[in-house]
Amino acid sequence: MAEKTAEFTVTFLPSGRRLEVEEGESLIFAARQAGIHINASCGGSGVCGKCRVVVEEGEVSGGLPQGLEEVATGGVRQACTALLSGDVTVRIPEESMVRKGGLTSEIPVRNRAAIHYYDIEDVREAGLYWPPVEKFYLELEPPAAADNISDGARIVRHLREHYDVHRVVISLPVMRKIRRVLREGAFKVTVTIAKTIREGGKNYVLNIQAGNWLQRNFALAVDLGTTTVYGVLLDLYTGKVLSRSAEYNQQISYGEDVISRIIQAEKPKGLELMQELAVSSINKVIDDLLRKSDAEPDELTSLTLAGNTIMTHLLLELEPHNIRRSPYVPVNTFFPPIRARDLKLDMPDHAVVMLYPAISSYVGGDIVAGVMGSGMYLTDKLSLFIDIGTNGEIVIGNREWLVCSACSAGPAFEGGGISHGMRAAVGAIRDFSIHPVTCEPMIITIGNKPPLGICGSGLLIIVAALFESGVVDHRGKFDRSLGCPRFREGRDGYEYVLVWDSESGTGSDIFLTEVDIENFLRAKAAIFAGVKTLLEEVGLTVNDLEQVILAGTFGSFLDLDSAMTVGLLPEVEPEKVLYVGNGSLMGCWMSGVSNHIRRHVVEVVRRITNFELSEVAGFKDQYVASMFLPHTDLSLFPAAAERLQPVSGRPEE
Amino acid sequence: MAEKTAEFTVTFLPSGRRLEVEEGESLIFAARQAGIHINASCGGSGVCGKCRVVVEEGEVSGGLPQGLEEVATGGVRQACTALLSGDVTVRIPEESMVRKGGLTSEIPVRNRAAIHYYDIEDVREAGLYWPPVEKFYLELEPPAAADNISDGARIVRHLREHYDVHRVVISLPVMRKIRRVLREGAFKVTVTIAKTIREGGKNYVLNIQAGNWLQRNFALAVDLGTTTVYGVLLDLYTGKVLSRSAEYNQQISYGEDVISRIIQAEKPKGLELMQELAVSSINKVIDDLLRKSDAEPDELTSLTLAGNTIMTHLLLELEPHNIRRSPYVPVNTFFPPIRARDLKLDMPDHAVVMLYPAISSYVGGDIVAGVMGSGMYLTDKLSLFIDIGTNGEIVIGNREWLVCSACSAGPAFEGGGISHGMRAAVGAIRDFSIHPVTCEPMIITIGNKPPLGICGSGLLIIVAALFESGVVDHRGKFDRSLGCPRFREGRDGYEYVLVWDSESGTGSDIFLTEVDIENFLRAKAAIFAGVKTLLEEVGLTVNDLEQVILAGTFGSFLDLDSAMTVGLLPEVEPEKVLYVGNGSLMGCWMSGVSNHIRRHVVEVVRRITNFELSEVAGFKDQYVASMFLPHTDLSLFPAAAERLQPVSGRPEE
Repeated sequence: MAEKTAEFTVTFLPSGRRLEVEEGESLIFAARQAGIHINASCGGSGVCGKCRVVVEEGEVSGGLPQGLEEVATGGVRQACTALLSGDVTVRIPEESMVRKGGLTSEIPVRNRAAIHYYDIEDVREAGLYWPPVEKFYLELEPPAAADNISDGARIVRHLREHYDVHRVVISLPVMRKIRRVLREGAFKVTVTIAKTIREGGKNYVLNIQAGNWLQRNFALAVDLGTTTVYGVLLDLYTGKVLSRSAEYNQQISYGEDVISRIIQAEKPKGLELMQELAVSSINKVIDDLLRKSDAEPDELTSLTLAGNTIMTHLLLELEPHNIRRSPYVPVNTFFPPIRARDLKLDMPDHAVVMLYPAISSYVGGDIVAGVMGSGMYLTDKLSLFIDIGTNGEIVIGNREWLVCSACSAGPAFEGGGISHGMRAAVGAIRDFSIHPVTCEPMIITIGNKPPLGICGSGLLIIVAALFESGVVDHRGKFDRSLGCPRFREGRDGYEYVLVWDSESGTGSDIFLTEVDIENFLRAKAAIFAGVKTLLEEVGLTVNDLEQVILAGTFGSFLDLDSAMTVGLLPEVEPEKVLYVGNGSLMGCWMSGVSNHIRRHVVEVVRRITNFELSEVAGFKDQYVASMFLPHTDLSLFPAAAERLQPVSGRPEE
Repeated sequence: MAEKTAEFTVTFLPSGRRLEVEEGESLIFAARQAGIHINASCGGSGVCGKCRVVVEEGEVSGGLPQGLEEVATGGVRQACTALLSGDVTVRIPEESMVRKGGLTSEIPVRNRAAIHYYDIEDVREAGLYWPPVEKFYLELEPPAAADNISDGARIVRHLREHYDVHRVVISLPVMRKIRRVLREGAFKVTVTIAKTIREGGKNYVLNIQAGNWLQRNFALAVDLGTTTVYGVLLDLYTGKVLSRSAEYNQQISYGEDVISRIIQAEKPKGLELMQELAVSSINKVIDDLLRKSDAEPDELTSLTLAGNTIMTHLLLELEPHNIRRSPYVPVNTFFPPIRARDLKLDMPDHAVVMLYPAISSYVGGDIVAGVMGSGMYLTDKLSLFIDIGTNGEIVIGNREWLVCSACSAGPAFEGGGISHGMRAAVGAIRDFSIHPVTCEPMIITIGNKPPLGICGSGLLIIVAALFESGVVDHRGKFDRSLGCPRFREGRDGYEYVLVWDSESGTGSDIFLTEVDIENFLRAKAAIFAGVKTLLEEVGLTVNDLEQVILAGTFGSFLDLDSAMTVGLLPEVEPEKVLYVGNGSLMGCWMSGVSNHIRRHVVEVVRRITNFELSEVAGFKDQYVASMFLPHTDLSLFPAAAERLQPVSGRPEE
């Protein structure tokens, strides 16, 4: 763990608002945290010079306005480049802060979901630690004239009598070396066994080694994402994580979304290519994980992997063609354990690859793994599990029952279909507020670089802020009565200029159009309508939800207030929202160390009822009703409705 | 089936003995069948001219004595080259037949064991027909929006609902083509399934084909012998045998016996070589079987194979090293089903190879298959199953219990360790009698060619005849008082010349020495002592035996009277002796068409108790007691004792 960074007290004047912020953070970040708007349109890169504040007490590091270095007296600083080095009191000047007509420069504080950490000790304490691949050290009696059973039978007998392991099958490659290894080890050997999860199932001997190698048993957990492959290396002897790694999915050069990968796979030799790229991406992760540990490649005994249905198909070289064609049929959703050699993974031939089962074409193994990783399947609370991306996957239920569905949200949450949309990378606008009178923006980018575009979580915040400030109405249309120069008629209709060309990293204006907002509305409507429809199918309403579990990258950046303001997420208390991070990887990790959990997976998959929303009467009506901010039915969003009251009343003032 | 050959009546004078013999057989063969001795030392090749007889009535084809062609009147013929073409009356002249001192030229009639034929209808009638690999034709509902489960799940559901097949696993190679094949066949497909024999076990989908291929499901049964590979091609749809084939085991060029194969396998790359030769021998059989039928290679779905433990090890490339070293430990005796691709057999990659389990290093899968093929495990009768070769394998028991053991008989029964021993090939002496006064032999060879040596079954008959005629005593020593010129002191002690150099096919004398007889005694003593010891271990005696089952090539040529006269087999009524032919192949055939029988195999193997004779107190005493003709304890051979009475009294006359 990194050492805890020092925290300093920042006091903002004239409001007097005070908060603790970590050393090294910028003043603009501190203001944003405090819910204070400061004009800033260069993303925090120090270029636009709009975010000047006055440091009245204490010192900051940097932040001297450009061209003003020598005359910078009176503590004038650029909030974006002034970094905390002690307690400070900062005054927001009039030009950056306006109090007029009951409106303040106060903006909502960001609420991120609490992060749900996973601990191996939970599994141990629950008595669930039971690796799918176990090593056993056997000190065998050497053969004698009165006891000359075969080498194989000697091992099988010992396992039965000393370890209560039954129905042992010795595979051919192990049989081929058993004689030599037994004698090399003077009949003291370590056998590696893939344990069945079925009552009466078979236990397969994967390997035999001379001597005692109990402590050298390493497993991998891998989340094969469309964009990124995440992996952890587990020590099955101690249960500890030895290393973590992530690499891009090399398929990405053939398209960012799953559909373009399917199209690629349909070309001649395309499927083989996609398979090779998936494997080579995983192999890079494996290589990195091993480099960061003292484990050797030939000590890897298993890999537990989850991915969406398309990624799983491509990894296994299964034809994904019908996944993208109505009625959206995958080749298979259950996958037997596979030997590493059959996939050409950089692991010993005998190592076992266990794949998370999928539910349907668009509710994949990653979601099942997420349900496992989040513990949702064990709770009494009525829970909503949601992974938002191009496809939003929704699971609702508790320990008794589970229903799921996929909604095609479109690429808006990943920056697609938005005029200046982009992935969450350096230069992407990640935070935003708008001055309620001047309509000047406060823009913070990832990496504090000049803005390049808008990422999904930024888009959510922008739309929410525009709506809350009354700049955009509940239909997603701009208030055309506003006379600010940032509003204009563009090629795609009315638009709001977030960043002028002179301050952007692209050299062009960065703006948001009504068409962009409509695309955003489609995306959020698909998700919310999915949740509401699923709930209604089981006779419940959003008010019954006791827990919301966010998974996936988007979930980690999701501002909860914004999400509830726009009607993406149902309105629940922020403390009822959990973020499980990479739930898929967590699920792999859990079932990678526990056959009990592998059994649970089978039970959970059997228990989940999948709904094709297109087949559910009423989904379309729900979708249309959700195409508003936050929804046509404001009773679903009572808190938002209350908060919006003065704003919605503003035009009449 | 071949047409039945015509039979003619042959009457021998002066005895008046009469019998029916098939058209085309020789007169000397007819005489032998009738139990009449005719001097003949050239093996029936027409060279020695000693076997002259007079045809008094009727005609024969050929048989005119050499050099006498034009003056051959009065019906003088050489019995060995005179072939039956009608009813005849034949007089044996004085020179070939002597009646004196109560002795006659009458010799024992040959008794071969009754052949036990196996019929697929037996399996059907017993309700046991249930191929391990079944094809199912599925007419599936195509996917629809309201029923868009995966292709794999659709197949699994149909099998469960329409065929009561559960726990279906679709392997990766099948998954890879399932989508295409389903659509090519408009969702009418044939799936090939390897059915489990275990309650709750898994059923593996091996293949999927578009359309209905129910009637194209072919299986192989193969006996992988040390010398010969036998195979049959089975139509699993009809249960019928389509073709049969046999090829030499190509390993034979590295030694005829299993030990030399092991030694070869211990050399660098030797094991791989032995494996390749085994596979290539089987592939030759497969090729021939297919050529003789209309089945295509890709329609083969399974192969059931049995071999002795060494052959099985070499086929699977398992190190056989410790099989030949005390305490004689094989690598394994149970073998999981293997895919054909893992052995490089000329079958589809997905075809399943099922191997008969072995009991121990020297009681192999061929013996287990023989026990299955003979039906011994189903009978109430106390049965002795015996396969005699270099190693004699013995199984005793019935439906309730089974015990087994291997006895190292040495190579005598295969012609090894005998001065003029040879394999049962053309020119090998296969039948013999001796004139009780002149000590002139009657010699018949395989193929009626000039004698080259003595094969195992011939050796048995020779020793029995020499003993019965009093030429050899119960210790296996020649009566040195006989003045015949055929007896002489040789390099290895006293010997009997069977064939003079002028009449042999080798240009040298062919003789039998007392050392040869001692080697024979060791071999037969090992077998008999094994039988007796095993019986005593379970508290029984040879008199309790109700059935004797002979298996293996030697069994088919074994003269039962000779075998009981010398004390190789326990004395039972000839009608209680069955010959099951290639019991190993029969067992493969049976379990190749019936999972019920595969289940029985597992039960039988669990039920068999193996005895290492070297570990059983008393075996050595039994062995020493069996080193006599027929045995030190004559009460074990009451019939032989009675028959031998006048002979054993002869020297005193």
